[in-house]
Amino acid sequence: MEISKSVTGRVAIIGASGYGGLQLVKLINEHPLFEIASLNGERSVGKNWNDMNPFIKLPIDKEITKTIVDGMDNIADYAILSLPNGLASQLTPLLLDKGIKVLDLSADYRFKSLNKWKDIYSYEASKYPRNDYDLCEEAIYGFSEEFTNEISKSRLIACPGCYPTSTLSVLIPFLKQGLIESDGIIIDAKSGTSGGGRNPNEQLLLSECSESIKPYGVMGHRHTAEIESIASYFAGHEINLQFTPHLVPMVRGILTTVYGRLRDPGLTADDCRIVLEAFYKNQSFIDILPVGTYPATKWVRNTNKIMISVEVDKRNGRIVLMSVIDNLLKGQAGQAVQNLNIMHGIQTDMGLPKITFYP
Amino acid sequence: MEISKSVTGRVAIIGASGYGGLQLVKLINEHPLFEIASLNGERSVGKNWNDMNPFIKLPIDKEITKTIVDGMDNIADYAILSLPNGLASQLTPLLLDKGIKVLDLSADYRFKSLNKWKDIYSYEASKYPRNDYDLCEEAIYGFSEEFTNEISKSRLIACPGCYPTSTLSVLIPFLKQGLIESDGIIIDAKSGTSGGGRNPNEQLLLSECSESIKPYGVMGHRHTAEIESIASYFAGHEINLQFTPHLVPMVRGILTTVYGRLRDPGLTADDCRIVLEAFYKNQSFIDILPVGTYPATKWVRNTNKIMISVEVDKRNGRIVLMSVIDNLLKGQAGQAVQNLNIMHGIQTDMGLPKITFYP
Amino acid sequence: MEISKSVTGRVAIIGASGYGGLQLVKLINEHPLFEIASLNGERSVGKNWNDMNPFIKLPIDKEITKTIVDGMDNIADYAILSLPNGLASQLTPLLLDKGIKVLDLSADYRFKSLNKWKDIYSYEASKYPRNDYDLCEEAIYGFSEEFTNEISKSRLIACPGCYPTSTLSVLIPFLKQGLIESDGIIIDAKSGTSGGGRNPNEQLLLSECSESIKPYGVMGHRHTAEIESIASYFAGHEINLQFTPHLVPMVRGILTTVYGRLRDPGLTADDCRIVLEAFYKNQSFIDILPVGTYPATKWVRNTNKIMISVEVDKRNGRIVLMSVIDNLLKGQAGQAVQNLNIMHGIQTDMGLPKITFYP
Amino acid sequence: MEISKSVTGRVAIIGASGYGGLQLVKLINEHPLFEIASLNGERSVGKNWNDMNPFIKLPIDKEITKTIVDGMDNIADYAILSLPNGLASQLTPLLLDKGIKVLDLSADYRFKSLNKWKDIYSYEASKYPRNDYDLCEEAIYGFSEEFTNEISKSRLIACPGCYPTSTLSVLIPFLKQGLIESDGIIIDAKSGTSGGGRNPNEQLLLSECSESIKPYGVMGHRHTAEIESIASYFAGHEINLQFTPHLVPMVRGILTTVYGRLRDPGLTADDCRIVLEAFYKNQSFIDILPVGTYPATKWVRNTNKIMISVEVDKRNGRIVLMSVIDNLLKGQAGQAVQNLNIMHGIQTDMGLPKITFYP
Repeated sequence: MEISKSVTGRVAIIGASGYGGLQLVKLINEHPLFEIASLNGERSVGKNWNDMNPFIKLPIDKEITKTIVDGMDNIADYAILSLPNGLASQLTPLLLDKGIKVLDLSADYRFKSLNKWKDIYSYEASKYPRNDYDLCEEAIYGFSEEFTNEISKSRLIACPGCYPTSTLSVLIPFLKQGLIESDGIIIDAKSGTSGGGRNPNEQLLLSECSESIKPYGVMGHRHTAEIESIASYFAGHEINLQFTPHLVPMVRGILTTVYGRLRDPGLTADDCRIVLEAFYKNQSFIDILPVGTYPATKWVRNTNKIMISVEVDKRNGRIVLMSVIDNLLKGQAGQAVQNLNIMHGIQTDMGLPKITFYP
Repeated sequence: MEISKSVTGRVAIIGASGYGGLQLVKLINEHPLFEIASLNGERSVGKNWNDMNPFIKLPIDKEITKTIVDGMDNIADYAILSLPNGLASQLTPLLLDKGIKVLDLSADYRFKSLNKWKDIYSYEASKYPRNDYDLCEEAIYGFSEEFTNEISKSRLIACPGCYPTSTLSVLIPFLKQGLIESDGIIIDAKSGTSGGGRNPNEQLLLSECSESIKPYGVMGHRHTAEIESIASYFAGHEINLQFTPHLVPMVRGILTTVYGRLRDPGLTADDCRIVLEAFYKNQSFIDILPVGTYPATKWVRNTNKIMISVEVDKRNGRIVLMSVIDNLLKGQAGQAVQNLNIMHGIQTDMGLPKITFYP
Repeated sequence: MEISKSVTGRVAIIGASGYGGLQLVKLINEHPLFEIASLNGERSVGKNWNDMNPFIKLPIDKEITKTIVDGMDNIADYAILSLPNGLASQLTPLLLDKGIKVLDLSADYRFKSLNKWKDIYSYEASKYPRNDYDLCEEAIYGFSEEFTNEISKSRLIACPGCYPTSTLSVLIPFLKQGLIESDGIIIDAKSGTSGGGRNPNEQLLLSECSESIKPYGVMGHRHTAEIESIASYFAGHEINLQFTPHLVPMVRGILTTVYGRLRDPGLTADDCRIVLEAFYKNQSFIDILPVGTYPATKWVRNTNKIMISVEVDKRNGRIVLMSVIDNLLKGQAGQAVQNLNIMHGIQTDMGLPKITFYP
Repeated sequence: MEISKSVTGRVAIIGASGYGGLQLVKLINEHPLFEIASLNGERSVGKNWNDMNPFIKLPIDKEITKTIVDGMDNIADYAILSLPNGLASQLTPLLLDKGIKVLDLSADYRFKSLNKWKDIYSYEASKYPRNDYDLCEEAIYGFSEEFTNEISKSRLIACPGCYPTSTLSVLIPFLKQGLIESDGIIIDAKSGTSGGGRNPNEQLLLSECSESIKPYGVMGHRHTAEIESIASYFAGHEINLQFTPHLVPMVRGILTTVYGRLRDPGLTADDCRIVLEAFYKNQSFIDILPVGTYPATKWVRNTNKIMISVEVDKRNGRIVLMSVIDNLLKGQAGQAVQNLNIMHGIQTDMGLPKITFYP
C-alpha cells in the first residue's frame, strides 16, 4: 500500500483560535499522515495551546507563536490560513515564495479576477492594498470533488465558502449538463451560528438567537457573487441568481434548499436522483438520498459529508434540490484537509470523519 | 365607551389539552369580555384542569368534561374546536344547529369545495364520512384582516393554517393588485416544533430535532392546496406555486420567505414597502418593517402579530418577501380569538398580546 | 374601587437597552397605572426607541435621552435604575434629593453595610468612590413578599439579585421558623444565559453555550454574600452556606435546588408543603406545588411567579427545596414593578403576568 | 507491537436502534480490531440498517435479524445488550452458555445481590422472573478505570449507569482514601435528553424540554441505589446519600456537581486536585482540570472522556466536585467498548474518541 510509504506532511495552522482553526487543530492532530508544524496567532502569542483549549488537548503541547515567514519553510510544507478576509493576501505571496503550499480559508483567492474581489470585498480592499492579479488567476477554487486534478497540482488553494459549497454541490451537476434553466434559480440557505465566528457579537448571543430564526444579508450577501461566479463557469454563461441566508438556532450545519426549473419538464425526481448519483459516482463524501428521504443537518454534523436529496413537482417541472453539510468541516476546515490530502497525493478521505455521533 | 356595555361571551373550548387548546385557555381566561364556558376533552374527562396544567392555573378550577352538544347552548355562545382534521366536521353541524357559533381550528372547512377537501385530506375523508357541502360553502376563511366583514356576520369560521397565514399575509397585497407574476412563486417556510403538536412523536423529540434543521413534506404538503386556493381567489385565476416547509430547532414561530417576480421590474423595495403599508393601514397586528430590517420569529413570539419585510433585487426584478408569526397565536389560537372579537362586535385586538417579552 | 381613583405614576427608566430595561419598558408601557416618563441611556442618546427595538414598539415613540437629574422631578415620580454595579450609587442620592423615589436593580444598596459592599464589590468600589453609609442603611431589600410593609414606606428599594430571589423564597420560611439546620445548606442553582446580560461576550455566544451546561463562579460568587446576609437576618444568626451557579442552554429562567437538613427529621414532605403554603398564604405570585410535582422553569417563563416544590428523604431527614422563577421578571424587572405597585399603594400584582404561554 | 497480532473480535449488537445501539454501531464499525457480527432487533427485523439509518451508513449493509442464540457462537465472540431492564437477564444466561461474553448496558447485573435488584426494579422483577443469583454475584461492575483487572478476566460485564459513572468518578478517590465524610454527600446531576431514550414521550419533545430545566425523580431515582452500592463498597461501610437528577435542554452530556465535607478541613483545592491526579495517573480518558477551570459538557461531547474539577470552600471545609461526561459514550456505549478493549486484551483506548469537535 502506497500510503505507508508516504512522508508525513508538516502543516502550519495560521489563525488557530477561531472555529475554523479549532477544527484544523483537531483534524491535523489526529491525521495519520500530517502533523502540526506550528500554531500561529496574534493575541495569544506565548500562551500554550492546551491551557487555552482544555477541550482539544494535544498529546504534546504547543505554544502559539507569531507568524514569521522567514525560516518557516524549514518546519512546514503547507500552511492553512484561517484569517480575516484581506489579511490572508498579505501573507500568501511570502509563504509561496518560500515554497510553502498555501490553503486559504478566506475569500481572498476565490475570484479569478482580483478586481472582482475588490468590488465585492471593497472594505477589505481599502484596508489591504493588493496587486496579486497573477495569484488570483493561478489559485484553484478548492471544491475538492469538482477540481480534484487541478488541486493536486496546485500550490495555492482558495477554499470555498460554506454556503457556496453547499449550494454548488447540487447546482453544478445540473448546470454543467444543461438540465436546468439558468434563469430564476432561488437559493434559500439556513446556517447555524458558528458560521458567524467566535468573536463576541450581540447578534450571536444565545439569548438573542435561541428560539428564533431570521434572514440576513438578503440582498448582496458576498457569497452570492462567489456562487454566481462558479455557477457561471460550469454553465458556460453568466448566471444571475437569488441567494438568501438565514440564521438558525443551532451551532453547526447548513441546509440549502435550491429551487429551479427543469429544461425537460418530463424528468422525474428519480431521473434527477440518477443524474446526481452518476455525477458523484465514487465520491466518498457525497451521499445521494433516495427520493422522499430529506436530509437533516444533524445527519452530517461533525463529518465532511454532503447529503443531497431531490424532488420534482410534476405539475410544473420545478426541481427542488436539498443539501446539508457541516459548515465548519465540508464547508471550511474539513474541505481544506480534503484538499491537503489531494495535494499530498494520498487518499482523499484520509483522516476525515464520515459518520456522525447521532443524535 | 361601547365596550363596557358589551355582554360577556361564553366560549366552549373543545380539545383543550393540545397546544392550540392551551393557548385558548390562557387567552379566553384573561380576556376582558369572554369567559370559558367549558373545557371539553376525551382522554382527560373527569380530571381537573389545574391539576393537569399547573402552569396555566385558572382562578376557578374547571373539570374536563365530555362534549355533549345537548344543552350546550345553555352555557355557551361560541365553540372553538381544536380537534384533529375530520373529527371537527362531525361536531360542527350539531353545534350550529343549537345556535352555537363555531370557530374551527382544523382544516375541515377551509375549502369552499368539500370534494377538494376529500381530495387533499383523503385519509380523514375515508375515516369520517361527510356530506356537509353547504357548510363548506358557507364557512368563512378566518384570515381576520382579509375577511373582517364576512367574519363579523358568520356563524362558522374556518381558521387558517399556520403556514397559509404567514404566506398569504405577504402574497395577497401583491396578488390582489396584480403586482407580481402569479407564475413561479416559491415559498420557503421554516417552523418551530410546536407546529407538530403535543402527541409523542420520535421526530419531534428534543434529541432528534435539536441542533438540526430539515425539510419535510417537500411535495404535496396539505397547506400547499390551502395557500393556492386562497391565493387564486385573490389573484382572480388559478395559481400553482411551490411550498416547502422546514423544521427548525425552536418551539414557536414561523418564518416564511417568499420569492416572486415583479410585473414592473422598476419597482424598488421601498415602493413595495409602501404597497404593504397602504394595504395594511390601520391593521394593529401587522407591522411593515423598514427596508433592510429583517424580522426574527422571536420578535413576534407570544404575540398575535405579523411582521413583514420586503426586498427587491434590482438586477432582475425579483421580490423577496419575509414574514414572521407565532404559529400558535396568529397562526392558530390567537387568530381564532381575533375572529371571536370580530364576531362579538368588539375591538379586534382586545385581549391579544402585541409585544413580546424579549429576549 | 380605590384603584380607579389612583393617580398615574410616572416612571423614568434609566438604562433601558439591557435585558432588564427591555422588560421594564414593556411592563410599564402596558401597566394600567404607570407610564414611562423617560428612557435614559448613554450610547443610544438621540435615537428613537421604536427604531432600535421594533419588537417592543411603543404606541408613542420616545427618544433616548441623557440622564439629567435637574428638572427630572417635573416629569418623574419614580426612577428605576438598570445600571452596572457602582454606577447606580452615583445617581441615587441626586435622584432622592429631588424627591424621586428610586428602585435600583444593581447590588449597590443590597447590603446594610456599605463596607460589606466594598468588600464584595471591590472592583466597583475602587472605580466609584462611595460614602453613602446612611443610604445603605436606609434602603429596603426589595423582596416584595418578605418586606411588603417596609417597601410601601420607603423611597429607596434595593431590588434583589435573581439567584437570591429564587433561593431565599424557599429558605426564609424554614429559617425564620427554625425548621432547618442553618449549617450545611447547599444551593445548586441553574440559570439561563440572559442572566449574563446583553453585552457581547464569547462565553454567552450560542455556539459556545448551546448543547452544554457548566458551573461558574463556584467559589465566591457575589450572590453568596447577598444570600447569606438575608438568610442570616431571618435565621437570627450568621449563616454560612454553599452556592454554586450553573449556566444552562436556555434564555430565561432559574431553577434552584436547595439541600438542607430538617431539625425535626420526623417531618414529611407534606408537612413541609403545608409550612410553605401557610407562609405564603395570599401571595398571588407564589405557587406551592403538590408533593411529587416538580417545577420546570418553562412554567414561569414570562411571568412574575415563583413555583416551589419540596421533598424529604425519610431515610435521613434531608430536605430538598426546588424553586423556579423567570430571572428577568421575578428575578429582576418584574419584582421591581411589584415593588413599584406596593410603593404606589395599588394592588401588588397589577400589570404583572401570572400565566405563561406554554410551551 | 502486540496489537497488530490481535485477532479481530466479532461483536453482536443486540438492540441496535436505540441511542445506545446507534453509538455501538458507529464505534464497532470504525474500530480497528472489532467488527459487527450481527445487528439484532425486534420491530425492525428484516429491514436493512442503511435504509433505516442513512446517517450511520455501514460500508457493507446489514439486515436487522431476530436474536437467535443457537448458532450465535459461530459468528460472535461478544454480545453487547442494549435492551430494557429485565429483558437483558432473560438472554444473558443463554449467551454465556454458548461461550459468548456479555456486556450488558441495562441495570440487570449492576447489583451483587439479585434481591436488591428486585427491590429497586420491582416492576421489571414482576415482569421477568429471575433466579440468576450466581450471575449477579459473578458479574463485574464495568467502571473501566476502577475494575480494570476484574473486567479483563470476566465473561459478564454490567456496564454502569450514566449518572453513576459521572458521580463515582469523583467520589471514589475521596471515599477510598477516607478523605471525605461519608455522611451528607449531595449529588446534583444535570443530564441531556438523550438519557431518556429514543421512544416517543411527551416529556422529551423539544416543545416541552427546550427553554426549560427541571428536576425529576427527586426521591428514589434508581441510580441512587446503584451509586450508594458502589460508593459503599469503596468506603468500606454503608453510605446513604442524596441524588437529584435534572433534565437540561440539550441532547448529550451529564454534569454532576457533588458536595461533601472534607475530613481534614485544612486541605486546599490544589491538594484535592493532586489527590485526583494521583488516583487517575495514566488514565487516558480522565482529565483533571486546573483549579478554577470548570468543565462544560460540550468539552467531552462525542468523546469517552471524563473531565473533573474540584474546589474547596476554605471557610467551612466543604468540597465541591464537578465532572462531565457524554452520557451515551463514557456513560453508556463508549464505556462498553472500553471494557471490550480490556476484555480483548488490547489498548484500553483503542477506537474511542478523546477530542470533541468544538463547538
